[in-house]
Amino acid sequence: MAIHVTVWNEDSAQESAQSVLAVYPKGVLGAVAGMFENREDFFVRTAYLSQPEAGLSEEILEDTDVLVWWGHCKHRLVPDEIVTRVQQHILRGMGLIMLHSGHESKIMQRMMGTQCSLRWHENQDKERIFVLEPAHPIMRGVPAWFELEAEEMYGERFDIPAPDALLAIGWYESGDVFRSACCFNRGYGKIFYFQPGHETLRSYYNPYVQLIIRNAAHWAARDRALDRVLGSEFAPPLEEKK
Amino acid sequence: MAIHVTVWNEDSAQESAQSVLAVYPKGVLGAVAGMFENREDFFVRTAYLSQPEAGLSEEILEDTDVLVWWGHCKHRLVPDEIVTRVQQHILRGMGLIMLHSGHESKIMQRMMGTQCSLRWHENQDKERIFVLEPAHPIMRGVPAWFELEAEEMYGERFDIPAPDALLAIGWYESGDVFRSACCFNRGYGKIFYFQPGHETLRSYYNPYVQLIIRNAAHWAARDRALDRVLGSEFAPPLEEKK
Amino acid sequence: MAIHVTVWNEDSAQESAQSVLAVYPKGVLGAVAGMFENREDFFVRTAYLSQPEAGLSEEILEDTDVLVWWGHCKHRLVPDEIVTRVQQHILRGMGLIMLHSGHESKIMQRMMGTQCSLRWHENQDKERIFVLEPAHPIMRGVPAWFELEAEEMYGERFDIPAPDALLAIGWYESGDVFRSACCFNRGYGKIFYFQPGHETLRSYYNPYVQLIIRNAAHWAARDRALDRVLGSEFAPPLEEKK
Amino acid sequence: MAIHVTVWNEDSAQESAQSVLAVYPKGVLGAVAGMFENREDFFVRTAYLSQPEAGLSEEILEDTDVLVWWGHCKHRLVPDEIVTRVQQHILRGMGLIMLHSGHESKIMQRMMGTQCSLRWHENQDKERIFVLEPAHPIMRGVPAWFELEAEEMYGERFDIPAPDALLAIGWYESGDVFRSACCFNRGYGKIFYFQPGHETLRSYYNPYVQLIIRNAAHWAARDRALDRVLGSEFAPPLEEKK
Repeated sequence: MAIHVTVWNEDSAQESAQSVLAVYPKGVLGAVAGMFENREDFFVRTAYLSQPEAGLSEEILEDTDVLVWWGHCKHRLVPDEIVTRVQQHILRGMGLIMLHSGHESKIMQRMMGTQCSLRWHENQDKERIFVLEPAHPIMRGVPAWFELEAEEMYGERFDIPAPDALLAIGWYESGDVFRSACCFNRGYGKIFYFQPGHETLRSYYNPYVQLIIRNAAHWAARDRALDRVLGSEFAPPLEEKK
Repeated sequence: MAIHVTVWNEDSAQESAQSVLAVYPKGVLGAVAGMFENREDFFVRTAYLSQPEAGLSEEILEDTDVLVWWGHCKHRLVPDEIVTRVQQHILRGMGLIMLHSGHESKIMQRMMGTQCSLRWHENQDKERIFVLEPAHPIMRGVPAWFELEAEEMYGERFDIPAPDALLAIGWYESGDVFRSACCFNRGYGKIFYFQPGHETLRSYYNPYVQLIIRNAAHWAARDRALDRVLGSEFAPPLEEKK
Repeated sequence: MAIHVTVWNEDSAQESAQSVLAVYPKGVLGAVAGMFENREDFFVRTAYLSQPEAGLSEEILEDTDVLVWWGHCKHRLVPDEIVTRVQQHILRGMGLIMLHSGHESKIMQRMMGTQCSLRWHENQDKERIFVLEPAHPIMRGVPAWFELEAEEMYGERFDIPAPDALLAIGWYESGDVFRSACCFNRGYGKIFYFQPGHETLRSYYNPYVQLIIRNAAHWAARDRALDRVLGSEFAPPLEEKK
Repeated sequence: MAIHVTVWNEDSAQESAQSVLAVYPKGVLGAVAGMFENREDFFVRTAYLSQPEAGLSEEILEDTDVLVWWGHCKHRLVPDEIVTRVQQHILRGMGLIMLHSGHESKIMQRMMGTQCSLRWHENQDKERIFVLEPAHPIMRGVPAWFELEAEEMYGERFDIPAPDALLAIGWYESGDVFRSACCFNRGYGKIFYFQPGHETLRSYYNPYVQLIIRNAAHWAARDRALDRVLGSEFAPPLEEKK
């Protein structure tokens, strides 16, 4: 049965800057969604901020097994009630793949409890990604390390809780390192943070980046059998329950 | 140098129910604060919800190395801006000891990213607490296991992220188990959740419960040296930065 | 493609005590092997101590994706060179499911680096197993908790490293608790320790015990694709390389 | 009360190569021991391989709170019974600080259960060490990152179990990364692996390297109070119990 993936971005293709479209003609949204298209194992849809309910209605989330998120400049425009809704779905089993600059999105901060801040600069540094856990299903088929010709530098300290599994570390020619692939379990949901993906560089064309993201979608996919086992044990929402 | 401990409760002694005062004449607030009094290693103050700013002004938190929290019925009355303020202090290094029914406080949910829900009943069950990590500084001087004559049952599944260290498991005669002593690192702060402490039972008189709480205060105490090392690297607040 | 499972026991059916055969007519070896028989997802073989090379020749291990181990009284009779051979296969990706009293087998101690000791008594205690991580693939289809009518009591402190994932805790009517389902990653191999299975009690007839063991075999199965990715990077054996 | 530190090396000062003595006039042994000399918080002694019982008699280990280990070429010359003796002391609470090329020592492999292999070359690469957990006691007083002018490159994948706490990551100008500071709990003992320290380079003169090693000795020091709490619960030795 196909995994239902919803790819979210703060911008639709039309809303994307020319500098982005020059690299990704359908925007970052289209580039990421494209990784899941025309495959039997996935059913993919897209969503973005300027849609009603930020594209994340209750109906869409209920039909989503894995939510893939990319945002950068508009984190603060995502309404708090949508963030809470996404959190509820993750805690009930929906997977979340958080890409690149989504590290400081409200939903990432909400799930982690920390600022998720980091050091960064844009200098088209070469990056090498070293795999620490080659036997983890997310790293299936990925070599011991691979290279990205140019990326935005993301450097430690990355303000996250220690991951439940640390899968990879990135090296940058600028003299920096980063925990570039991190797994977290929260509630009944699985979260994967993956660092590559600056909007004007070409990382989403890298076959290993694509493979890791698809593997992560398999790993994080909501297990519908849990609904039957766990029933209605869930308490009402978090801070909103007043 | 004495560790500055602020003991917070949703009720002052005067506000406490008769059923509580019958067990703890100064309320749970006074019982917990009493663990830190008349000792050279601690300077202790108390704070509670009905004070201005819920007793947790910027000045008081700035002067707090460890915040010890007990709440039960009034979690939703703690203002969100105070929760954010406490979160900021934890991320910058203030310790948090969360006791018993504080598991569903807003600040616990905020730091964990999960609901922190659990199963429970009040039936004065006997509890045995088994130590898993006897070499951890919080368990210094604690035997392999000890018993509480009567406690409120808290049962798994406890909806928390996997702790960075799981120090103890509780057994209940009702047929339940619970991760009763859990350490979490978040930002530069340390968090310790400890399960005993129903307000009408006598656990806070137990010498091992007291020892664990005091040990935890030493473990979680803010390291003022960090301020000098880390300087002003902290980003502005989380969801509130708009 | 079927997962190749080798079920190992210190006794063949014929070598098993009458008290065991009264409960499991084909011995514990046959009872465990039976969980994998007549299924498309598994190919199963058995092995035992009195065979040449303790039943674990290089050829058999090379053809094994998951080794399921049950031993009790004869741990010290397993030759050290066989232990080293099994360790090498685990580090190169073979899965290990360690059942019940196998906790003090040489291979368990070898992989953990600790004594793996615990407290125990045989008193046919009722046990309840509580699931901590219902979304983990090993717990797929397992309810929030289930009961075993009678088990040998295994109590904390269990002298193991903190598991990479703690999946379940057992409660015993004797007043004890135990980390009953633990995952460990070592090298490229996955290890699952599971506590139920005293040889004269009926736990291996429990459908959830069986389901967990089968799920664990899927989780721990050697990924043959790793051989291609990792090639010959493996160093020669450990302490034996002289 | 002073912490009793035993600094072990495969070579005494006299046995050290000229290339080593040119950098460290008292050998690596003397350089590491020197970090603990003339301080009220430590009592330090040295030990080395060519002494009777490899310098690690029962009496010396019994009087050791933390064992600091450096070895490189002579790992296989350490007798297995000494390795087992050291393991027993660690499991009963003695701390172990494993430096640099000690990663493939028998005792490291014994405690980890893995090969502890890594990639390496000697090219005097510049290294930067980034601190991930600035609030951990081992990193007290250490800045966000610091630099070593020249080190032997140690690169991932480092074949260790996921550390109980990952404190730092090293960046090398050669294009490599390494988990350079790792904490492990085993039995009642604490283990700290720390990567710097090639014998012909100057890392042990770096004040932060020295500070980290001293902090680690405080963190890992055997807690003698445990002896009273835990009594004689320890089982006889591991594989040697025949």
